[in-house]
Amino acid sequence: MATFEQALPAGFRWSAVQAGIKASGRSDLALAVTEEPAAAAAMFTSNQVKAAPLQVDAEHLRASGGYVRAVLVNAGNANCATGEQGLAAARESCAALGRTVGIAPHQVFPSSTGIIGVPLPVEKLIATLPAAVAGLSSGAEAAEAFATAIMTTDTRMKVAQAEVAIGGKPVRIFGCCKGAGMIGPQLVPHATMLVYLFTDLAAQPAELKAMLAPSVEASFNSISVDGDTSTNDTVLLLASGASGAAYGSASQEEQQAFRDALGTVCGKLAHAIIDDGEGVTHVVTLQIKGATDDAAAKRIAKSIAHSPLCKTAWSSADPNWGRIVAAAGYAGVQFDPADVSVHIGGLPVFERGTRSAAMDEAAVHQKMLQREFEIAVSLGSGPGKCQFLTCDLTVEYVHINADYST
Amino acid sequence: MATFEQALPAGFRWSAVQAGIKASGRSDLALAVTEEPAAAAAMFTSNQVKAAPLQVDAEHLRASGGYVRAVLVNAGNANCATGEQGLAAARESCAALGRTVGIAPHQVFPSSTGIIGVPLPVEKLIATLPAAVAGLSSGAEAAEAFATAIMTTDTRMKVAQAEVAIGGKPVRIFGCCKGAGMIGPQLVPHATMLVYLFTDLAAQPAELKAMLAPSVEASFNSISVDGDTSTNDTVLLLASGASGAAYGSASQEEQQAFRDALGTVCGKLAHAIIDDGEGVTHVVTLQIKGATDDAAAKRIAKSIAHSPLCKTAWSSADPNWGRIVAAAGYAGVQFDPADVSVHIGGLPVFERGTRSAAMDEAAVHQKMLQREFEIAVSLGSGPGKCQFLTCDLTVEYVHINADYST
Repeated sequence: MATFEQALPAGFRWSAVQAGIKASGRSDLALAVTEEPAAAAAMFTSNQVKAAPLQVDAEHLRASGGYVRAVLVNAGNANCATGEQGLAAARESCAALGRTVGIAPHQVFPSSTGIIGVPLPVEKLIATLPAAVAGLSSGAEAAEAFATAIMTTDTRMKVAQAEVAIGGKPVRIFGCCKGAGMIGPQLVPHATMLVYLFTDLAAQPAELKAMLAPSVEASFNSISVDGDTSTNDTVLLLASGASGAAYGSASQEEQQAFRDALGTVCGKLAHAIIDDGEGVTHVVTLQIKGATDDAAAKRIAKSIAHSPLCKTAWSSADPNWGRIVAAAGYAGVQFDPADVSVHIGGLPVFERGTRSAAMDEAAVHQKMLQREFEIAVSLGSGPGKCQFLTCDLTVEYVHINADYST
Repeated sequence: MATFEQALPAGFRWSAVQAGIKASGRSDLALAVTEEPAAAAAMFTSNQVKAAPLQVDAEHLRASGGYVRAVLVNAGNANCATGEQGLAAARESCAALGRTVGIAPHQVFPSSTGIIGVPLPVEKLIATLPAAVAGLSSGAEAAEAFATAIMTTDTRMKVAQAEVAIGGKPVRIFGCCKGAGMIGPQLVPHATMLVYLFTDLAAQPAELKAMLAPSVEASFNSISVDGDTSTNDTVLLLASGASGAAYGSASQEEQQAFRDALGTVCGKLAHAIIDDGEGVTHVVTLQIKGATDDAAAKRIAKSIAHSPLCKTAWSSADPNWGRIVAAAGYAGVQFDPADVSVHIGGLPVFERGTRSAAMDEAAVHQKMLQREFEIAVSLGSGPGKCQFLTCDLTVEYVHINADYST
């Protein structure tokens, strides 16, 4: 269990209970309630197939003008590809929570994660709401319980914190997320990655939306475990305002400091997802540069990150630069192979289109035996660049996904 | 070993020898020589990184006006990402073979397959050319030796044959290929899939080109093992003319019969590649229909075929329709999830956006325990359709590619 090094943001209470949706019998219902309506910005998966709760979230944010009083998450069932019945189940959950807490259904932000295409046992969920509400607390144990109940194949809780001062007042960010497989997020102003970012900053929904998009692009949209873009990916940023510090009246330096802190929290959570990726034994940072533009650099990064041949080579610390160059080559991006250079762990392996004369295979292999290493690919002299975080493909990944129905 | 059920096309001789390029010490140099210049049509990988022999092939076909006297294939080294040295090695091989056989270097069509980014030991290759030429024969054993020497991680030889009558004369097709991993061919008028199609039809290079493209699109361009598009993929069709039957003077029905026979041979070879795919335990035919157009249907098929979550589920005969629908959803193609239906092995699992009421999970699981089964995905009422052949992702695939440097 991670511990909380800093104070949690004010204005939020959390809880978690066992609703019996996870087959394991672990806690699977997470609830967060705000004291006052919290300004919200959310991003959802770009998958054409969107889970029922995501459709309800979009409706509720429109109806509320971008304010949220409660976040209701179940793990163990994605409530996706469940048709009208799935939509009804999500709405019923929100209505039931609304009655229990005394808020409007459209002030509830529902999320689901787990198996796709199987009806959500909504009666189990609703039956546990009174206990979940009764257990709400602003303490660290409650926040940890929330972060734990949202997990599926995750092996550990993923949390990150930051604190900045605005107008002399401390403003806190607490982020938590889940996700270990079906990770290839493509969020559009858009994850079964679920990310919840809580802050006690005072801000408008539009301000939150503007700061969330670049933070997500550089973090959650720049990682992949298996390249499978989920139907349920969601990032939610909630600002309670309870710090008394308003973003709109902060100095430019303070605003930048807050955005940087948000970016740092998103970056830590994104790293935690890859580090806990299904079967992962190596975390690989791809640094692409010299592409025609950033979009081209990202296509190259994804092509390498999703290549089963690259990923299996990394699992055995095999400096197989040929697979890396080949994967770059089928990314659908134009470049001159004679300009390509590759460094692994800072060591040259491939220079200007051919094996590096300075290549020391044993030394490179040693670098790759570390849990984390970097692969730098230079495509030429273009301005396009990208940093992308990914992982190896192991026998354990296959076991997890061949044996477990998500 | 497959056996030859029909006569081989006339006008060709084959041989194979051990050049010491494969670490295993197995035969690794394959040679085919034609009695007269054979009309040729070739398609190469769309990968931006193209191996040296593919660059030399394109030059030689231009220089010869589309005629070939010899095909020289080495396995064990792809001669790719090897810079100017690699190009020089390919040219040197052709020049040496030309001297030995008594033909021009530009009449030689070189191919390489194996590890990428490591210099080709061209001196070993050249030293064995006299023995390869001395061993040339038009017999079945020689053709089998050719088809065997081109293998890398393949577990078995892949050959197919057909025969049609044109103007009363028998015209034969003999095809052979290699490929088990790094299979996601995208051949453009485009594999390390190597395919050689020999026929004794008399035809012009332009006629061959026109018939090869649709056969390749429906076969090699509609399969994938891992989605890794190789730097070396090549399909070569050679027509010796030795049957005495000319395509240009055949009836429309005869021409169609020949094109059909070519398509059948390509289809059998494509199936053989998937069936022998690295670690494959299940061969899956995807039937996509109801898309807006054929290109959209193919994007959906590839998204499903390349999804690690779908592929691992198939390995355990898990009817996980949720993963199939999710993979369709991130293909970058628009459709209405409420219109989607999925059948596995002919049995309904998902109908009009939700789990099929008629779904019998045990029966579907039984279907999926078979080595081959079909998954049909209907997206709606559009005219777009696609048949695509793929396979499961197993622990054995990871072992093969984590342990072996290709």
